[in-house]
Amino acid sequence: MERNDGGFDIARDETDSLISSDKVEGTAVYGADRQKIGSIETVMLTKRGGKVAYAVLSFGGFLGLGTEQYPLPWSVLKYDTGLSGYVIGLTNEQLEAAPKYGSNDRWDWNDPATARRIDTYYNPWTSALL
Amino acid sequence: MERNDGGFDIARDETDSLISSDKVEGTAVYGADRQKIGSIETVMLTKRGGKVAYAVLSFGGFLGLGTEQYPLPWSVLKYDTGLSGYVIGLTNEQLEAAPKYGSNDRWDWNDPATARRIDTYYNPWTSALL
Repeated sequence: MERNDGGFDIARDETDSLISSDKVEGTAVYGADRQKIGSIETVMLTKRGGKVAYAVLSFGGFLGLGTEQYPLPWSVLKYDTGLSGYVIGLTNEQLEAAPKYGSNDRWDWNDPATARRIDTYYNPWTSALL
Repeated sequence: MERNDGGFDIARDETDSLISSDKVEGTAVYGADRQKIGSIETVMLTKRGGKVAYAVLSFGGFLGLGTEQYPLPWSVLKYDTGLSGYVIGLTNEQLEAAPKYGSNDRWDWNDPATARRIDTYYNPWTSALL
């Protein structure tokens, strides 16, 4: 869960084309206005095929209480070297209307409607190049 | 880096088709003889396209000193519910001959020969279904 800045050489946990999951976890996420929104909590991987299904953005709350999780398509995240974090093209208001789950919400990744809802919502901000 | 067993509901960090990176990290890996070899340290993701390039198996050493890292193709890992860990089809001797890096070794993910070497080595143990 914690960002690992010390364990590896930079050539080992990130290159031009690769990044380690434990480096992604904990990385800050900024909105379209370049204000910090939260950070990446984890990355959801498909067991078969080994693809990144979603990065989970977490924000709000304190010490894990009251936080909300927003699953983002990987292609919505753009790394900004100046900010040392990911920038997404959404405003705060646009993000607040996105699919999310709080600590008491039901959330079922097994329901295909869940994935459809996320993909549909973020479609305008997903890079066509990815 | 630590396995997160408490933060999420099971339906959130793992489903039939998805698993979170922070659940993969720290999960034990067993050899063909079902003896524990080590554990997954991190997962290397491709920045473009968002695919799992490799899972990094770490073992040996103590408190991070003297450990060796073996980058494994994702499709080599099979989850075994009885062992609560991944099983790979290699014996200890076969794994020891695989590409690895110790704490003092040079390792360059940017070199295409690195990926080729890994993929070639594990080809006999890679599931054709993935």
